[in-house]
Amino acid sequence: MESIDILIINGSVLTMDPQDTLIKNGAVAVSADRIVEVGTEDALSASYKAAKIIDARGGIIMPGLVNTHTHAAMTCFRGLADDLPLMTWLHDYIFPAEAKLTFDIVYQGTLLACSEMILSGTTTFCDMYLFEEAVAQAVKEAGMRAVVGEVIYDFPSPNYGPVEDGLKYTEALIEKWRDDPLITIAVEPHSAYVCSPDLLQKARAIADRNGVPIVIHLSETEREVVQIREKYGRTPVAHLAEIGFLCPNLIADHCVALTAEDTALLKDFDVKIAHNPESNMKLASGVAPIPELLKQGITVGIGTDGCASNNNLDLFQEMDTAAKLHKVHTLDPTVMDARTVVSMATIDGARVLGMGDIIGSLEAGKKADIIIIDIRSPHLMPMYNIYSHLVYAVTGSDVVTSVVNGRVLMEDRVLTTLDVDEVMAAVNRIAQDIVMQTKS
Amino acid sequence: MESIDILIINGSVLTMDPQDTLIKNGAVAVSADRIVEVGTEDALSASYKAAKIIDARGGIIMPGLVNTHTHAAMTCFRGLADDLPLMTWLHDYIFPAEAKLTFDIVYQGTLLACSEMILSGTTTFCDMYLFEEAVAQAVKEAGMRAVVGEVIYDFPSPNYGPVEDGLKYTEALIEKWRDDPLITIAVEPHSAYVCSPDLLQKARAIADRNGVPIVIHLSETEREVVQIREKYGRTPVAHLAEIGFLCPNLIADHCVALTAEDTALLKDFDVKIAHNPESNMKLASGVAPIPELLKQGITVGIGTDGCASNNNLDLFQEMDTAAKLHKVHTLDPTVMDARTVVSMATIDGARVLGMGDIIGSLEAGKKADIIIIDIRSPHLMPMYNIYSHLVYAVTGSDVVTSVVNGRVLMEDRVLTTLDVDEVMAAVNRIAQDIVMQTKS
Repeated sequence: MESIDILIINGSVLTMDPQDTLIKNGAVAVSADRIVEVGTEDALSASYKAAKIIDARGGIIMPGLVNTHTHAAMTCFRGLADDLPLMTWLHDYIFPAEAKLTFDIVYQGTLLACSEMILSGTTTFCDMYLFEEAVAQAVKEAGMRAVVGEVIYDFPSPNYGPVEDGLKYTEALIEKWRDDPLITIAVEPHSAYVCSPDLLQKARAIADRNGVPIVIHLSETEREVVQIREKYGRTPVAHLAEIGFLCPNLIADHCVALTAEDTALLKDFDVKIAHNPESNMKLASGVAPIPELLKQGITVGIGTDGCASNNNLDLFQEMDTAAKLHKVHTLDPTVMDARTVVSMATIDGARVLGMGDIIGSLEAGKKADIIIIDIRSPHLMPMYNIYSHLVYAVTGSDVVTSVVNGRVLMEDRVLTTLDVDEVMAAVNRIAQDIVMQTKS
Repeated sequence: MESIDILIINGSVLTMDPQDTLIKNGAVAVSADRIVEVGTEDALSASYKAAKIIDARGGIIMPGLVNTHTHAAMTCFRGLADDLPLMTWLHDYIFPAEAKLTFDIVYQGTLLACSEMILSGTTTFCDMYLFEEAVAQAVKEAGMRAVVGEVIYDFPSPNYGPVEDGLKYTEALIEKWRDDPLITIAVEPHSAYVCSPDLLQKARAIADRNGVPIVIHLSETEREVVQIREKYGRTPVAHLAEIGFLCPNLIADHCVALTAEDTALLKDFDVKIAHNPESNMKLASGVAPIPELLKQGITVGIGTDGCASNNNLDLFQEMDTAAKLHKVHTLDPTVMDARTVVSMATIDGARVLGMGDIIGSLEAGKKADIIIIDIRSPHLMPMYNIYSHLVYAVTGSDVVTSVVNGRVLMEDRVLTTLDVDEVMAAVNRIAQDIVMQTKS
């Protein structure tokens, strides 16, 4: 019998492997940071002696979810301003609040976001915000996996100051976190409407030189398309193609307003897409043509966007919305079937972040990022089809256990790395200050 | 000090009264089945001596939610068939399964639905299905409040047999449950496309004679509109107006495909509307023009529809979807603001069911249908605005306590009237039979 660290037993193992293997009475063996074997409970119990056994109690054992686009620290602004025109929301609420951001606010807001994400089944996320060194520290403490990068734009930032220092800040982050097993630094110019072609090209060069992902908001609204057309005579996607910015390690967020030519360019350059249906709905941005992108073979993941435009980080609810939104938008109930949507939130999300080889599915040799869903609740009875349940019935609160890189971050809904009460109290104090400032 | 049965303390009381009163450090006093007083905790603690004190622990104390349209027992078919064309879904899965319905299946399925609804904050629902005597019994056992009615159509039913017996069955239900404090029987012809004008008029006459609500599916899809136009030369709404069917106690489910003339008719006859956004999305039926209906002053509530087309009964998630769907559909982020949506799920839902005077808000003299939301979770921190939280961040799993008609149905997420494990086991057995039948 081989000695291992963790054996997860007594559940249906949804592997999300290329063969779509589903193992009833399944088990997963974990040693150090890796999955050693996935199989039946009988076989694995006979092969391995585990230091810790986790009983899934008949639930679903599956890959941790991948949130491909968020601004984690915006938890601090959850519900601060809703139901407003985009420009009122941005200029009267979000920008003034963000102008007063500090390292500590971002750190505490990210700890809160990590708590919420672990509690709702997300194990990996891609972040864009200010003070990303604080984000990296918070993620490290939480034990999650993340792609983090400092947002860069033509105007000065409350964090790094002038734009040139943004690029330096990013390079310093890359240097500092280069060998970290859980944190990947990305280069993150905000968008084509607040970043000059020169800045975008410099950002792309840094990403190329270091072999890291590059993240941008792209074609989020028709308004953006009009603005870029006026300035550069092309759509945002065509503009980025023209300046040599599109590439396979580009993660493009939103992609709501696309022409057929845009889609062809995204396909040709193998750009990865982060789809954020709830944010696009709440801000009335529009509906991204996801079924069409998928048909073209473009890799699409799901994101929640930040808590000021959602207002939660629950990827299970986001899956539900994604599946339903495109059905009604195309008037075709067969698009975005549950299997496709679960794939977007797991293995395809991993591919979007350039991590398709290491996470996103439960397979021997991959990193052990695993969650367990408790199905013993009235809203999850009966269960005819696991994919259907995950998309249309499960919510984040049904996740009971989370393992990242072989480390248990939550067991029976208790977080092991974070003190939730302390984290909530800290963000509450920050919120009180924000309310005082908003009133003054 | 006046003796009362229950005093709920230590929470923010969201009354949903006409003045939109919100009481921080509030309390609600309950005696027998009624709310005696709503006020500050200090004032009420000084006035009343309660047999039972419920501590809301800083959470939200609000009216129980009203689900204006569901088919409760369809919990038995949750996830049986998804992502299919409507006709395949109906003819290959739902109709064959429903042809084998029995009193016991409907009874057990409704008990499961009641468990799920209580656990997610619903205290009142409006049901349409077969074997509604079983539904009434299950609701009675659960202690919920409901409008229930046997679905009637031109063809024979597996419950009552020929159509004439459907009307008799309905009249017998009305007779039997006439004085029940919690159950209201409605007359429920399925729709204009499976009910002849004669049947609809007879149904309407029974409702008039007994002063009970009448429920119908109306203009759910464009397909239905085409079908009715071909048959009667008018839209479904105009057809119902023509035969004298429209009236203020009519609850019309869906109303997705409406002309401007239809909307005017619904307004003129003061017809009440049950909006089911998630079902309409999942079945790709279309988007009901709810912002326009509200603008016209039409009373609209929210419903989940049945679990075969949703696939859950969580009205908090339904509120979130309702708010977001119409923003993106109209490309206006200000429509369906959070306050409006909470109103639809509480006081307006009550008005839809003809119960606006007795439930839907927390006011002295009204029935005590009250829920408590626990806000001490990362996804509910911080809280700037209660309405925003309820619509965009809370889900059913945040509801901890439920009181209906002065009786505690759930406390700290434990149901007091139903044995959840027993209920789940019974439905699991039913589901196993359904799987066997589907395979054969």
